[in-house]
Amino acid sequence: MSLHIGVDVGGTKVLAAEVDPDGTVLRTARRSTPGRRVDTALVEQALTEAVAEVAGGRPVDGVGLAAAGFVDAAGERVMFAPHLPWQGEDVRARLEERWGTPVALDNDANCAVLAEATLGAGRGVADVVLVTMGTGIGGALVLDGRVRRGRNGMAGEFGHAQVVPEGRPCECGGAGCWEQYASGNALVRHARARIGAEPTVLEQACDGDPETLTGPMVTDAAVRGDRVALGAFASVGDWLGVGVANLVAALDPDLVVIGGGVSAAGDLLLEPARRALARSLVGAAHRDVPQVVRARFGPEAGVVGGAILARDAEHRAGRIWS
Amino acid sequence: MSLHIGVDVGGTKVLAAEVDPDGTVLRTARRSTPGRRVDTALVEQALTEAVAEVAGGRPVDGVGLAAAGFVDAAGERVMFAPHLPWQGEDVRARLEERWGTPVALDNDANCAVLAEATLGAGRGVADVVLVTMGTGIGGALVLDGRVRRGRNGMAGEFGHAQVVPEGRPCECGGAGCWEQYASGNALVRHARARIGAEPTVLEQACDGDPETLTGPMVTDAAVRGDRVALGAFASVGDWLGVGVANLVAALDPDLVVIGGGVSAAGDLLLEPARRALARSLVGAAHRDVPQVVRARFGPEAGVVGGAILARDAEHRAGRIWS
Amino acid sequence: MSLHIGVDVGGTKVLAAEVDPDGTVLRTARRSTPGRRVDTALVEQALTEAVAEVAGGRPVDGVGLAAAGFVDAAGERVMFAPHLPWQGEDVRARLEERWGTPVALDNDANCAVLAEATLGAGRGVADVVLVTMGTGIGGALVLDGRVRRGRNGMAGEFGHAQVVPEGRPCECGGAGCWEQYASGNALVRHARARIGAEPTVLEQACDGDPETLTGPMVTDAAVRGDRVALGAFASVGDWLGVGVANLVAALDPDLVVIGGGVSAAGDLLLEPARRALARSLVGAAHRDVPQVVRARFGPEAGVVGGAILARDAEHRAGRIWS
Amino acid sequence: MSLHIGVDVGGTKVLAAEVDPDGTVLRTARRSTPGRRVDTALVEQALTEAVAEVAGGRPVDGVGLAAAGFVDAAGERVMFAPHLPWQGEDVRARLEERWGTPVALDNDANCAVLAEATLGAGRGVADVVLVTMGTGIGGALVLDGRVRRGRNGMAGEFGHAQVVPEGRPCECGGAGCWEQYASGNALVRHARARIGAEPTVLEQACDGDPETLTGPMVTDAAVRGDRVALGAFASVGDWLGVGVANLVAALDPDLVVIGGGVSAAGDLLLEPARRALARSLVGAAHRDVPQVVRARFGPEAGVVGGAILARDAEHRAGRIWS
Repeated sequence: MSLHIGVDVGGTKVLAAEVDPDGTVLRTARRSTPGRRVDTALVEQALTEAVAEVAGGRPVDGVGLAAAGFVDAAGERVMFAPHLPWQGEDVRARLEERWGTPVALDNDANCAVLAEATLGAGRGVADVVLVTMGTGIGGALVLDGRVRRGRNGMAGEFGHAQVVPEGRPCECGGAGCWEQYASGNALVRHARARIGAEPTVLEQACDGDPETLTGPMVTDAAVRGDRVALGAFASVGDWLGVGVANLVAALDPDLVVIGGGVSAAGDLLLEPARRALARSLVGAAHRDVPQVVRARFGPEAGVVGGAILARDAEHRAGRIWS
Repeated sequence: MSLHIGVDVGGTKVLAAEVDPDGTVLRTARRSTPGRRVDTALVEQALTEAVAEVAGGRPVDGVGLAAAGFVDAAGERVMFAPHLPWQGEDVRARLEERWGTPVALDNDANCAVLAEATLGAGRGVADVVLVTMGTGIGGALVLDGRVRRGRNGMAGEFGHAQVVPEGRPCECGGAGCWEQYASGNALVRHARARIGAEPTVLEQACDGDPETLTGPMVTDAAVRGDRVALGAFASVGDWLGVGVANLVAALDPDLVVIGGGVSAAGDLLLEPARRALARSLVGAAHRDVPQVVRARFGPEAGVVGGAILARDAEHRAGRIWS
Repeated sequence: MSLHIGVDVGGTKVLAAEVDPDGTVLRTARRSTPGRRVDTALVEQALTEAVAEVAGGRPVDGVGLAAAGFVDAAGERVMFAPHLPWQGEDVRARLEERWGTPVALDNDANCAVLAEATLGAGRGVADVVLVTMGTGIGGALVLDGRVRRGRNGMAGEFGHAQVVPEGRPCECGGAGCWEQYASGNALVRHARARIGAEPTVLEQACDGDPETLTGPMVTDAAVRGDRVALGAFASVGDWLGVGVANLVAALDPDLVVIGGGVSAAGDLLLEPARRALARSLVGAAHRDVPQVVRARFGPEAGVVGGAILARDAEHRAGRIWS
Repeated sequence: MSLHIGVDVGGTKVLAAEVDPDGTVLRTARRSTPGRRVDTALVEQALTEAVAEVAGGRPVDGVGLAAAGFVDAAGERVMFAPHLPWQGEDVRARLEERWGTPVALDNDANCAVLAEATLGAGRGVADVVLVTMGTGIGGALVLDGRVRRGRNGMAGEFGHAQVVPEGRPCECGGAGCWEQYASGNALVRHARARIGAEPTVLEQACDGDPETLTGPMVTDAAVRGDRVALGAFASVGDWLGVGVANLVAALDPDLVVIGGGVSAAGDLLLEPARRALARSLVGAAHRDVPQVVRARFGPEAGVVGGAILARDAEHRAGRIWS
């Protein structure tokens, strides 16, 4: 049996995994990421160790890297990453040479959409929009069964669409970006603002210090029916649906998949989003409104997508070479 | 030489044209459209007459219809059109049978983007976003050289993205839609609101009755340096650029083409749009920001695109059948 | 016992009433208002008849008119009224002469705040902000125990503060006015948009035709726990609180009184408003946040205020003359 | 001749001044303010020294303190001040006892409006709205010739009216506050965002580092016709006018006075504000739209107002006692 390894190169950790063709993760290895202001050799060493640990001496048929940063349109370089040291290095070729095995590279959102469209919630669907809601919003597109990367490899930056004129400033330098209203940060901000003003179990959860509140605390409280937490999900979910309606109006896709950490809340998030989509989408009465579903793959979306990327690359290479 | 005819089926008139392979319009015929509340036979009769007049007895190799309405994903039916009587009729097959010549059908924005991507401002470019600014905003996408139609044939409805929460109500039933701020209607509304409040040549242009003001009057005044008219273009152009930035963030295309009646103003509209794009687009410093250019084809975009559609259909059919 | 008559001169009807010093309405008479495009003599005749009917032959000590329109700062003229024919006529002196009894005049919101501050929810309070929520928003101020009328007699036009940039167009010619979001019209608009999209008793209430939906239907449904109706009150109440916070920040009053037809819903409206006030008001932790209470006088606010106005005028006149 | 001293107790410095009855500053003394986290005795010592220096051994008839913080409704205590150590101390009585001379106390905006209404731009006018535009927005009201302080002494907090839903977060904990769009900070933010994107003299002014840009640099550049600087004033001035329209709709005052550091730009700021007021004010055609003028007193508004406060207090005391 062939061995393909997916590697999620995140801002705080590297996760490598052997993934079988059905998307099952068989074996993993983890290293912490040494940060942005270090030599790139340190990150590449961490990757090498993690891949070697997963391989355990077996020959590797291919590695697919899912990087948390901008990858160029050719899938060769990491141009910029907020928490990694690469700045334009030819990461793919460099590691392919070092490891002596085919390496493929893409950004993490594109790997995640590949996982969903191939083996997950979007299996068998031609056009899939993926929105990942974590601290901020990420996104990716599969159209006609292929990941759409764009001229600069930067397609899918949905989170920075301006949805509020003169709105909240965003780390990107803009203001009123979608991710300021529909993200884990927005969820926590909403909940935090109500602590002290209304009775809520969140007060205990954060020991009276709203600054220590986290997204998972809000999710837990919402599951238990806490009114403040449900209110935060109602707001964030509504904004999710409004932004999804904008994407559906532009692309008319078959399916919308919601991933990322906040999607763990399931229908607490998705129900208000579906309502807002039905309300906001132009011509909703004249069309099939696409379903909005939760992603199949959670924190493993990157490694599964990476492994698929590795398999596809081999396949494509095979077709060309043979 | 083969004869392909493009037909623009608009809300107020039908324009049929013989178009040569370079996009030159050789011969045209016009009929008025009888409105929405009539028998579909009347519209089809008007189309038949216009096509026959252009043909002038010559055999026709194919007709391409550019319809101002929703065309289904298969390109067979006009599902709904605000100013035409069709409601789901199988227009393509019906006219093909009636005329005894291959007929192709798409909506007008898709025909326009086909014209631009094939022979116009986007010639030779893989990924083109077309935004047409007329009374409202229309749009269409070419990705990887093919018009992207979407699951329901409704891709490209950019004008109804919500850009202002709780904003201006839109005819679509929503509120805060992009076309409420970036359109010919918005242009006129802006200018109208200033008449009487500031000195402007528009006061004379509309004989003191702001209700009679039109978009072309505002364009003329802006060309002559009128401050009120320039202010209206500055606002509408800025909003154009903000919305274009949202599309570019999502799709990372090669080129953005601006068509529709308001685009006749050229840089008066496009310069503020380019500035807003540069200001609003995420990661502008790390990417090739796509050019924003004026469409090549003005009022003839529909017939040129229709004729290309007819030629392409023949070509595709040829490949399948032979 | 003295006889003071208050008259509410509304857009559709005239209501005259004998009101005792405690604010109890003893006897009323009603006439319909003949509209805007008639001779002013017709309206004045209707007023005369209504006052005569209430008097029933007894001598009248004073009449106070509460007019639904702009009354000048001196309380002499109705400058403009959307549904009445007066346009600057010296209504007060004209009717005083005709009736041979002292007449006082103010707009209806000022009469309502006078009623509330003197005998109603604001009794004994120095500074009262009144917000009346009917079709739109009206308002009036009592500061240091006196109605504040302003340079043009136009103080209290709270409903046309801009709270949404580029927001919903308003009948006043502006856009994004507060009353577009916090009013009976906004309540109905919200509810209407959900009919057909969610199960709601409103569907039956309006016999399936959302256009026939009225504010009282929404209130009834909300009282019965209907989720769509409650959602409409949540939105309108939230906006009410946001606008009230703006007024409290500017004026730091003792009390906020909410009147008008929508206030009949009581806490369904006021609770979300109080929450929004607590959330939005600057320095809420460092101040006494004023209470937000329902007006005592409903549809009788105008006649009660008018009668108080008549009594006060007599009192002031007495002080001057004697 | 009597000696009344006004003292401006600001966040960074104390300015004491002898002011004659015409508002002319005759003699000043300055001390730096020791900050918030010190003993209140240190600030009171600085005040004592500054007052003593101005007095120069002469008997003092009264001192008026203009404090940059919340002063209670009775004018006795500084409840809270972002840059001063007082937190509810009975500052007025304490200093009156220490100095053996009558002391009066109010916040700086109230002192400024007193200066303007008594001796400045609002001399002889009954109802004056003062908006001070510095880093943020401050405000104060004179109605019927008296400073309106409100239940908590907190009237005039115009800067924290919400004008953008889901807008820019504000230091007050709210979001979308007026001062986020109409203030010195907003001016600088606007200009900063354009540096590098358009040619501007500001690039040189700040030596290529937009972070060092200041409000006065933007004003200087605007005076010299710099397009980026003028654009920043156009935006901030427009927002000023929109907010002023909201205040005028509520209060219908005689006059609006604009003070604070940004008002040094004069018509560069006031012209766009006047245009926005005329455009946004409800019923502008049916009323006297109040004039919007620049304050007479700049950085001396506090000491002049303080001295007037001292004189008034003596006067009121005299009436009571004699």
